[in-house]
Amino acid sequence: MNRAHALQGISWPDFDRLEIGERAPYFQRDGRQYHALISQQFDRAFLDRMCELATRTRKIAKTRGGMLFLQGLLAEKRAMLYFAQPSTRTFLSFLSACQILGLQSGEVRDSKTSSEVKGESPEDTVRIFSSYYDLIIMRYPEGGFGDRIAWLLSNTDRPVPVINAGSGKDQHPTQALLDIYTLQRSFEAIGGIEGKKIAFVGDLARGRTVRSLAYLLTRYPGVKLYFVAPEQLQIGEDILASLDEYGVSYEVTDTLTPILPEMDAVYMTRIQDEWDTAGESRSIGIDEYIIDADRLQHMKETAVILHPLPRRNEIAVEVDSDPRAMYWRQVRNGMWIRAALILHIFERDAEVDRYFDDLMR
Amino acid sequence: MNRAHALQGISWPDFDRLEIGERAPYFQRDGRQYHALISQQFDRAFLDRMCELATRTRKIAKTRGGMLFLQGLLAEKRAMLYFAQPSTRTFLSFLSACQILGLQSGEVRDSKTSSEVKGESPEDTVRIFSSYYDLIIMRYPEGGFGDRIAWLLSNTDRPVPVINAGSGKDQHPTQALLDIYTLQRSFEAIGGIEGKKIAFVGDLARGRTVRSLAYLLTRYPGVKLYFVAPEQLQIGEDILASLDEYGVSYEVTDTLTPILPEMDAVYMTRIQDEWDTAGESRSIGIDEYIIDADRLQHMKETAVILHPLPRRNEIAVEVDSDPRAMYWRQVRNGMWIRAALILHIFERDAEVDRYFDDLMR
Amino acid sequence: MNRAHALQGISWPDFDRLEIGERAPYFQRDGRQYHALISQQFDRAFLDRMCELATRTRKIAKTRGGMLFLQGLLAEKRAMLYFAQPSTRTFLSFLSACQILGLQSGEVRDSKTSSEVKGESPEDTVRIFSSYYDLIIMRYPEGGFGDRIAWLLSNTDRPVPVINAGSGKDQHPTQALLDIYTLQRSFEAIGGIEGKKIAFVGDLARGRTVRSLAYLLTRYPGVKLYFVAPEQLQIGEDILASLDEYGVSYEVTDTLTPILPEMDAVYMTRIQDEWDTAGESRSIGIDEYIIDADRLQHMKETAVILHPLPRRNEIAVEVDSDPRAMYWRQVRNGMWIRAALILHIFERDAEVDRYFDDLMR
Repeated sequence: MNRAHALQGISWPDFDRLEIGERAPYFQRDGRQYHALISQQFDRAFLDRMCELATRTRKIAKTRGGMLFLQGLLAEKRAMLYFAQPSTRTFLSFLSACQILGLQSGEVRDSKTSSEVKGESPEDTVRIFSSYYDLIIMRYPEGGFGDRIAWLLSNTDRPVPVINAGSGKDQHPTQALLDIYTLQRSFEAIGGIEGKKIAFVGDLARGRTVRSLAYLLTRYPGVKLYFVAPEQLQIGEDILASLDEYGVSYEVTDTLTPILPEMDAVYMTRIQDEWDTAGESRSIGIDEYIIDADRLQHMKETAVILHPLPRRNEIAVEVDSDPRAMYWRQVRNGMWIRAALILHIFERDAEVDRYFDDLMR
Repeated sequence: MNRAHALQGISWPDFDRLEIGERAPYFQRDGRQYHALISQQFDRAFLDRMCELATRTRKIAKTRGGMLFLQGLLAEKRAMLYFAQPSTRTFLSFLSACQILGLQSGEVRDSKTSSEVKGESPEDTVRIFSSYYDLIIMRYPEGGFGDRIAWLLSNTDRPVPVINAGSGKDQHPTQALLDIYTLQRSFEAIGGIEGKKIAFVGDLARGRTVRSLAYLLTRYPGVKLYFVAPEQLQIGEDILASLDEYGVSYEVTDTLTPILPEMDAVYMTRIQDEWDTAGESRSIGIDEYIIDADRLQHMKETAVILHPLPRRNEIAVEVDSDPRAMYWRQVRNGMWIRAALILHIFERDAEVDRYFDDLMR
Repeated sequence: MNRAHALQGISWPDFDRLEIGERAPYFQRDGRQYHALISQQFDRAFLDRMCELATRTRKIAKTRGGMLFLQGLLAEKRAMLYFAQPSTRTFLSFLSACQILGLQSGEVRDSKTSSEVKGESPEDTVRIFSSYYDLIIMRYPEGGFGDRIAWLLSNTDRPVPVINAGSGKDQHPTQALLDIYTLQRSFEAIGGIEGKKIAFVGDLARGRTVRSLAYLLTRYPGVKLYFVAPEQLQIGEDILASLDEYGVSYEVTDTLTPILPEMDAVYMTRIQDEWDTAGESRSIGIDEYIIDADRLQHMKETAVILHPLPRRNEIAVEVDSDPRAMYWRQVRNGMWIRAALILHIFERDAEVDRYFDDLMR
């Protein structure tokens, strides 16, 4: 209770005034990540540590004894999964991460909880949920609400950490973590992420996934990014400006064919027509923005294909059995990296290290 | 199986004919509370014991070792949470209580289960649920249905206990328990609940919470109650008649201002316009029935503010950080007192006492 | 990972071409049942073993120590309960079986998961679910989808077993298992299922339950079946043809009264008018197809009454307290036999045998 929460040192109006990048240090406790809300919190050392911890956890989990060890790590904690926006995939990924670590959980998966009917403020709603639990994992339609709750809870006499499981079109920091982890695993034997050529393909205008990952890739020297999309769905100028600022090189193009043979990773995305307001997506010929058996032949042997899923037809089913298809493994990586994040927040990572060291001896 | 369930000794028609107050002894097994359905079951000794047990459980839970001990207490049991009426708060409170004690759980949170579609009787529906579980925690729109189920299950060869988690506008016995526990904790250092002045403010006509708590406060000598509400929402004559019968003194008023400085506790409630049939609530000026920073200044230093939550504007957010604001703690008290009740029902309370005594040594 | 899954040896088109009876061997791994999808998989030896294992598990569960032992058996595994068609009963039965064995679980109980909205294929949806879990328990409206998923998952580098929890009007193999187990327990002291006379009463045209159970009863020599239903709801010719093939004797009749005194078991069913297209069910006089106190008097002392539940009025409530009423016990039998099946699939049955042998010593 008397530990140093950075958010305790600032009033809400002062905090609310900060740019997103300035907020990162406030999500710490005793100088360690506590709330996990924005990709901007994750520096290179933290990303490396998360990847290491995820891999150790994953390897420990391969035996029955290891699983039982993991389940003991947070057996005394309970997590609230508050998904005001539905998301079966992310929900199950977090739930599984909790279960692996022995955290019990409660869930609210409906946007229309009784609170709205009864005129309760959203802050009160979450504070009540938080009263019963030791961790809030929250998906919420409006960006910034997680920051508000983190500030609020850090300034009570019972602070609990908040993890952002996706907020509007804005941030989805654990998706970015799992993408980084998938790239790190994929390139482990060939020099890591540094210096790799990575193409983002498809709907780049509306995907928060691409936005967050492109941002985190600025942490890896020598990476070159390729944004491959029809003009209407091309990446936003703000992202490019931010890449310029970090000195990251990139290319913007509307054809995949010419660059495909050089790519180390291809990050495919789905045309998200559920955000369409006037059927913009339909008029686009999307044949250029798919991977199928034919295209596979033009890719490097060591290249990998990622996709945040769900997919439609931008990756043909025939690609699934190719060793370069990483998107199914990517799904499980999400579970492991989320487990690593939770271990870090509750400071149980050192126990994992000790067990892992014994295992390797 | 061959233990003495009081409900086995009476036919349904005979039981059904009983007044509510006469039913209490029938919810026992071997002379101990087994089903927890009505506030009338809780005499003073039981209330004191529940408070003691909740406090011990709460203190044990402060360490990792203590939490693991608690989780072992009922690890072999499973609870069915059957909420035919939605209630996220009460649901999560019970679920957390179960998780703290290691009970696994299943849930049915929908009123339109397949049974209705298929023409099954409500009794059959619950009996099937009960077949898989060791405890039924039930919220149901109609009062008395819990009694019916308790009778039915006690007369099968596999009786399981039933806890009422709220039945219509009628009974919500564990809410009354948590209110008593909050008052007991609040007044622990200043002589307990006896002799205290307690105001109920707001919508007293429709709140089963006020009704149940006022009833339980008759167990504490010297308590004086104040019912503060506009005429349309004032407390029912039946409650006053029952207070008269128990010799409890009370005042009925429509203004909070004059009495506020004398109060030891103020129990705020929300105007429940979801029960309105003709917009009765809207015409009432509610300014007299709120607590804000200004009003705080006229309250005793040792006074406490309770609220069953959710609130609207009857307590200003600025009050939250005042040490007299007990409503957030009240939320967690609900979890502890429910855990205590479950421990009592399954006769695992002595194990808690032993662990606690060791801890204190 | 390098264990022999029979489904790895066959292409989808070749497998898809097979008759249902020819598929059974393909659901094995290393010659042991792995996926549990169709009643045709269960030969007599397997049925006997499941009954034995269910009984051992049930007996072990009678003590706290036994329950804790069982909860350790699969504590490192997690099950996905994917119910694309709602079913509270079967869902809770499987969930309880998992909880008894210590399996943690995740659930998707909605047919309209986000996948459909986003244009994802059903195969991708389940594969994502499977990524987080070690077992898929699946209810799905279309017959054969479970087979498809089993084939798909067996041909990935992370196969997980699939259990069919009901597919359309087609298969519900664990219901058939629990019916067999109930008959086996009921007749244990009087020579087993062999040679018994078993009547199916009510709606035999549309019940997959009757269909599956009649099929499994061909495994028991000397059984005679009676199909008692109004003409419109009488058993299908295909079932009778299949009984002829196996040399099982049977009678088809529209009156229960004359045969009732001879029956060893009466399997009652509900008129399932939710499948009605033109109100066929309403015109039938159903008085002949019920059991009440009066009818009980004409039944053997050792006879038993089964019902898959939910019931309407085909069994009067007054029958519930008769020792021949097995339908409540049948509910719990479902939980035990499902636990046995899961133990078998994960090859933990030998641990149950050892514990049981120690217990009996």
